[in-house]
Amino acid sequence: MDFTNLAQKYGTPLYIYDFDYMAHRYEALKNAFHARKSLVCYAVKANSNLSVLKFLAGLGAGFDCVSVGEVRRALLAGAKSYQIILSGVGKRDDELKFALENEILMINLESEAEMNRLESIAKQLDKPARISIRVNPDIDAKTHPYISTGLNENKFGVDPQTAKKMYLHAKNSPYLEPVGIHSHIGSQLTDVWPLIEAAKTVANLTRELKAVQIDIKFFDVGGGLGIIYGDESEPDLYEYAQGILANLSGLDVTVVCEPGRFIAGNAGYFLTSVLYEKFNKDKRFVIVDGAMNDLIRPSLYQARHKIFALSGGEIFDECKKEQLKELKFSPCDVVGPICESGDFLAKDRNLPPLNPGDLVVIKSAGAYGFAMSSNYNTRGRVAEVAVKGGEDFLIRRRESFEDIVALECEFLG
Amino acid sequence: MDFTNLAQKYGTPLYIYDFDYMAHRYEALKNAFHARKSLVCYAVKANSNLSVLKFLAGLGAGFDCVSVGEVRRALLAGAKSYQIILSGVGKRDDELKFALENEILMINLESEAEMNRLESIAKQLDKPARISIRVNPDIDAKTHPYISTGLNENKFGVDPQTAKKMYLHAKNSPYLEPVGIHSHIGSQLTDVWPLIEAAKTVANLTRELKAVQIDIKFFDVGGGLGIIYGDESEPDLYEYAQGILANLSGLDVTVVCEPGRFIAGNAGYFLTSVLYEKFNKDKRFVIVDGAMNDLIRPSLYQARHKIFALSGGEIFDECKKEQLKELKFSPCDVVGPICESGDFLAKDRNLPPLNPGDLVVIKSAGAYGFAMSSNYNTRGRVAEVAVKGGEDFLIRRRESFEDIVALECEFLG
Repeated sequence: MDFTNLAQKYGTPLYIYDFDYMAHRYEALKNAFHARKSLVCYAVKANSNLSVLKFLAGLGAGFDCVSVGEVRRALLAGAKSYQIILSGVGKRDDELKFALENEILMINLESEAEMNRLESIAKQLDKPARISIRVNPDIDAKTHPYISTGLNENKFGVDPQTAKKMYLHAKNSPYLEPVGIHSHIGSQLTDVWPLIEAAKTVANLTRELKAVQIDIKFFDVGGGLGIIYGDESEPDLYEYAQGILANLSGLDVTVVCEPGRFIAGNAGYFLTSVLYEKFNKDKRFVIVDGAMNDLIRPSLYQARHKIFALSGGEIFDECKKEQLKELKFSPCDVVGPICESGDFLAKDRNLPPLNPGDLVVIKSAGAYGFAMSSNYNTRGRVAEVAVKGGEDFLIRRRESFEDIVALECEFLG
Repeated sequence: MDFTNLAQKYGTPLYIYDFDYMAHRYEALKNAFHARKSLVCYAVKANSNLSVLKFLAGLGAGFDCVSVGEVRRALLAGAKSYQIILSGVGKRDDELKFALENEILMINLESEAEMNRLESIAKQLDKPARISIRVNPDIDAKTHPYISTGLNENKFGVDPQTAKKMYLHAKNSPYLEPVGIHSHIGSQLTDVWPLIEAAKTVANLTRELKAVQIDIKFFDVGGGLGIIYGDESEPDLYEYAQGILANLSGLDVTVVCEPGRFIAGNAGYFLTSVLYEKFNKDKRFVIVDGAMNDLIRPSLYQARHKIFALSGGEIFDECKKEQLKELKFSPCDVVGPICESGDFLAKDRNLPPLNPGDLVVIKSAGAYGFAMSSNYNTRGRVAEVAVKGGEDFLIRRRESFEDIVALECEFLG
């Protein structure tokens, strides 16, 4: 990918997404489950750009949504309503209503209170609700605490016994139709065994339900597949899929999985230009035009993204400490213009001396990058560009000052 | 303040700002420095709503800006250009140019490279640049590492020796006019002594400059004054101002200070409605309609905001553990609908049982609240409301789905 050219054409900071890579990842996962009926529902929250969703819908993907906004994005991008799932621990009434009226595949319930609420709304609309229940298997996903979701101490889902009680209630309600079962124990898992263990717990519950004539059609194993940010090893898809399928004996279910980061993460690059280099005593800083408002993962999750620099037409991967010593240069922090020390994109990296205008490329930035970006420090959100079959095209325009203040101006009087 | 009424009128989640309190804080600080000429420059990044800026401009405030966007906000809100300062470690050429063309009070330089850049732009435009230099006094502000900025290991400013060298260069340049000196060692300081120590270092340097005929007119002590989030004690304004002024003997300077949080922090409330209560085994969750995308401080800085609940017309402050035991209820986490465990607003709080529709009010939310909010999970940013003299009025409209996708739709094809 010609990053220098893309930076010149669209300006920096900039997000670039490799659509061909996304397709490759989607197909790999789809193929891993080829022994069963399966539905790969892309987790919209990872990267919700409409053009990303449209592209994945074109490949046949369904969509895992966590707000009415995400459902509306999926529909606007051309998704089929019967391939959309709505999850989330705190759905408002208007969200449940919208999901029912638009006849999505199923609504994933996360508490008894929510089930009661949905039942009453379904009754009002006289539209029975297809539901699944998110089971919290109390399994440690061994990931960052902020993105671990499968423990009792987390807010997500219900324990298996509560789930069973809820399914029995749903079975006897004319307004609830239990069609799915769900678990999701966390994000960025590089070890697949917790996922397989979770599937085992959920499969056992599914068989218990079958024994009482509750016939689950969609076995939703959630997302959570990790990607390589640094030196992790990639989860083995074959091991993952086989491990899950092995637990499904005696069950006639469609396997649903919900990859977000797995599809979008390593498809994305965040391009930022060097503004200045600076030393504070012995500490070296490369100050770039991108910042924590554009990519908050390093600051919020202490995430370490691989980076490289482009200077004078040459690519400089992070070099070895010895090389740096030869260059008589010290490691650097790559930091943004925002006025707090929490504003960093990379710490303690071995980059060669850089000049204003050189590019620093942050890898693995396709998931939870733009999606979490803000206008902090009144910085406009950056443009997004897709690359497909060697062609690049803008998929979101850079935000202008006028865009930023649009919802405030009318009240200035 | 009638939070129940405001929530009904404007919906939730919602930010409310008490303009009278902001005025009170502005005046208190202005008065603390009454023995000298002073300019209180509000730090726009804390809360940049145009109506907030307009209100403070009306009181006579200047503005501390850290991006061209913030300068444009200040100008749009009616600020006088000669009361605007532009700071920031990574100013782009277009930002420096805009600042020069609009003849703001001064540009605060943070590195030699930046000075050279500014000099060259000033030459191109044939407009000498009024500058100050941010001095990093290497003093530990003893605050959260993300908002500590006065250590050598931070990216901010230059050491006193480098600053002196830069001032000498500026003095001899026809395109640089050194008028100010600046330090800012961190945010949310509840002990004023590090601020006074920093002022001492900077005052000494100012006297050294005077000895070589560099006549500093603006002595900018930065911001950093802490507020009460929980059980901190409020910094003593008199002690703070007197401590700074005591260091200025022999100097004929205008004192500039840059409060952000100090003015806006405790003026703000974040209102959110209860959706459900939920137990996962023994762990109690109050799920509300507000989330980390609306207020990221708890998640990003582990900030503990005081909260209270409004239920059936009654106010419930966080009660004592003993009362909670009587109520046979356990402490709760107040969490949002976003699909990660990092999405919490308050942890381990002693709130009574709450019902759907009850309000939870997060205090001290006026600074770094809305300013850092995002569209994560395709959640529209909330509305902002001002209260002044008993009257309430909308100052930013709630973001709609159409607003969120506006910059993407045109590329959907």
